Amino acid sequence: MSGPSEGLDEVTPEIVRQIEEALADGDSAEAKQLMETLSPTGQASVFEQVSEQQRDMLVALLKRELDPEMLAELDEDVLEDVLDQLDTKDIAAVARGMEADDAASLIEDLPEEEQREVLAELPANERAGIETALAYPEDSAGRLMQLSLVKVPDSWAVGQVIDYCREATDLPEDVYDLFVVDPAGRLRGSVPLGRMLRTKRPVSVLDIVDPDISSVHATADQAEVAHLFRDKNLVSCPVVDDDRRLLGVIMVDDVVDVIDEEAEEDLMKMGGVGADDMHVDTLQTTQRRASWLGVNLITAVIASLVIGQFETAIEKIVALAVLMPIVASMGGNAGTQTVTVAVRALAMGELTAANMFRFIFKEVLVGGLNGFLFAILMGGAVMAWYGDIRLGLVIGAAMICNLLAAALSGTLIPLGLQKIGVDPAVSSTVFLTTVTDVIGFLAFLGLATLFLL
Amino acid sequence: MSGPSEGLDEVTPEIVRQIEEALADGDSAEAKQLMETLSPTGQASVFEQVSEQQRDMLVALLKRELDPEMLAELDEDVLEDVLDQLDTKDIAAVARGMEADDAASLIEDLPEEEQREVLAELPANERAGIETALAYPEDSAGRLMQLSLVKVPDSWAVGQVIDYCREATDLPEDVYDLFVVDPAGRLRGSVPLGRMLRTKRPVSVLDIVDPDISSVHATADQAEVAHLFRDKNLVSCPVVDDDRRLLGVIMVDDVVDVIDEEAEEDLMKMGGVGADDMHVDTLQTTQRRASWLGVNLITAVIASLVIGQFETAIEKIVALAVLMPIVASMGGNAGTQTVTVAVRALAMGELTAANMFRFIFKEVLVGGLNGFLFAILMGGAVMAWYGDIRLGLVIGAAMICNLLAAALSGTLIPLGLQKIGVDPAVSSTVFLTTVTDVIGFLAFLGLATLFLL
Repeated sequence: MSGPSEGLDEVTPEIVRQIEEALADGDSAEAKQLMETLSPTGQASVFEQVSEQQRDMLVALLKRELDPEMLAELDEDVLEDVLDQLDTKDIAAVARGMEADDAASLIEDLPEEEQREVLAELPANERAGIETALAYPEDSAGRLMQLSLVKVPDSWAVGQVIDYCREATDLPEDVYDLFVVDPAGRLRGSVPLGRMLRTKRPVSVLDIVDPDISSVHATADQAEVAHLFRDKNLVSCPVVDDDRRLLGVIMVDDVVDVIDEEAEEDLMKMGGVGADDMHVDTLQTTQRRASWLGVNLITAVIASLVIGQFETAIEKIVALAVLMPIVASMGGNAGTQTVTVAVRALAMGELTAANMFRFIFKEVLVGGLNGFLFAILMGGAVMAWYGDIRLGLVIGAAMICNLLAAALSGTLIPLGLQKIGVDPAVSSTVFLTTVTDVIGFLAFLGLATLFLL
Repeated sequence: MSGPSEGLDEVTPEIVRQIEEALADGDSAEAKQLMETLSPTGQASVFEQVSEQQRDMLVALLKRELDPEMLAELDEDVLEDVLDQLDTKDIAAVARGMEADDAASLIEDLPEEEQREVLAELPANERAGIETALAYPEDSAGRLMQLSLVKVPDSWAVGQVIDYCREATDLPEDVYDLFVVDPAGRLRGSVPLGRMLRTKRPVSVLDIVDPDISSVHATADQAEVAHLFRDKNLVSCPVVDDDRRLLGVIMVDDVVDVIDEEAEEDLMKMGGVGADDMHVDTLQTTQRRASWLGVNLITAVIASLVIGQFETAIEKIVALAVLMPIVASMGGNAGTQTVTVAVRALAMGELTAANMFRFIFKEVLVGGLNGFLFAILMGGAVMAWYGDIRLGLVIGAAMICNLLAAALSGTLIPLGLQKIGVDPAVSSTVFLTTVTDVIGFLAFLGLATLFLL
């Protein structure tokens, strides 16, 4: 969909295969030529699709010709792997000419020693910008901001500003808003470039400035920045210090990356994967996943300890063993539904102290209604299947208990975790399934012991 | 973080409570005044936090004074509820003066009859814009685009363009790029406003145009649009028809909403919730959730049919009933991890025919390694717990089988669903847990029957 001179975005499996073959045949020229037909995005996609070994060969082939834009598109784990193949001089060569914020995020994960070496290779003015960015905490507004922006004194008239823009050669191409500052460098507001263009030359910039624009502090977390861009539909947002002095500007395209990253994190956390581990090697992936499985093993063992308490009942009525996973599993699924809605609503700020009780009440009601529905379904089926009315009543009652427990714990667990400062996306489900397994087995086997033996 | 004159963004539970109290006391003036202290975003947040009844009271209170920006921020289900309270004249009053794309998305879910009535209330020029937008399929680029943009003929010089911009009164404020078209209205490229400003007046716009800019077809899906903005770091993107005639422009802030929506959808689907049902009434929520639970019930019943085949084994060794959920649950969790990574990688285009086999191979290896690890752990624990070496060996072997099955089905199921055109985010997990439950119970109880009886 983009013009041909930028190179192809869409990487077909066919192209990837051709590149892989060229690498396997040792035909570097061919591989290089194939890569050059691709846009930075396309190249990044190839880097993410080939094997680690082939990726290393590509890095060795391209070295300093690696496209900075391509690197900026790479998945974090893949980038780390690419940088591992480069020495500090190569990295510096690539970082040269990048925006300070992009260069900072390129080298932020390098060991400190190596960071210093890379910085030493860069011209003083570029180094300063990157060092400024690195001085802010990771994932902060200070890291995201770019330093190049158009800053004009509040004493100027529109004509002066226009002349200044026409004469200055080092202004960024992607200027959308001009920022107006007072003599101390404090932000007075912004003027959209389009408005500037349409105003008569003698008018003072202060007459057309938006004084109430949103701004963020340099130490604000990137999630907060993303929230602001989203709520206010911003295209750019100035970054200020404690005294409201203008430090830089964050552009929306960097925020889109942040939003993507956070959405991905939420999904991965809910799925029990610490991070996107597609590009991490097998052993490391195994390790990362094992720790989560270990936590789940504890849950499963707790559930099985509960079952262990009812060995006699199961020995007498073996149907209990056949039916008990149904009760536990329905509770787990219903609880996951509630947790998913709660976690998302908490993240979006839609679930607060103001509507917490209403939310819990509604979820419990939904749980009760669905409990009742599936109690009838399952109870009826069991009566028909085993010809035992009391067994049907027991499984029905257990179903209602467990779906109510699922609704209660599906709301209270994420709310409680949020309250004590633990990310509800990570750990809600494991606590939840512990509850629904334990209550599921306990209710079903307990009621069976009471009424059937 | 924003200036005071725009109103507060942050809605504290205290403010919500004050508004709720004012409504309960019938003090409309107070409630209205409290709402007026809030920004559109803040007001939307209140609408999402109060009960349905209170929301209806707020709508009745504000009617035509409802802020269009606030409505644009509302969750879809809440918006629907708000529109239900308004008659077509009220809706038309609110829609008047909105951008055509926003107005179209305001009324797109209304019944056709009502849509026509609203449109009839609007001035002809606004109506035409909205009708144009509505003519495109929902979730297409044509719906997202705004019609107001700056379009200049390719025969103009920079001076002419600047004069035109200075004189035209109806130009949008948020202009970032000017679009250059040929006499037939076909897109020739774009010029960033900043570059225009810095170019000498006699230069032809064709000399400074970017000819290779990205564009999308009006019928392109919004997910595709979001992908393009993300990959190319765009701020705006022109929308064209079959003949590459310029129709409108999509701005990044609308795309941010799309990205958010799609991320939310993925999360909700994986959690077994059809859509964000926080703002839907209890009965409807119950219904939506029940259908998913019904599907899961079938899964659970299939698993329990498998257990039913081994009643004799369980009767003889009741420990089997105690331990079997552990094997099934570990498989389910390991499989969910794999599915999560696969679904995300498919959505991001990182998993393709080119690296499919490498991906499957790696997942199976990870599954095997973790299977081995947990086989030793669980096998050892069971030997210690029950003092039965053969039971330990059986559970260990079953664990390895099930984690391998989890890895295989965790990759093959989403890949297969994608292949046949079914959204893997929705249905992967339910198929997966069917497999891991069945294989878990079958392997454990089957091996036990073979070796322990």
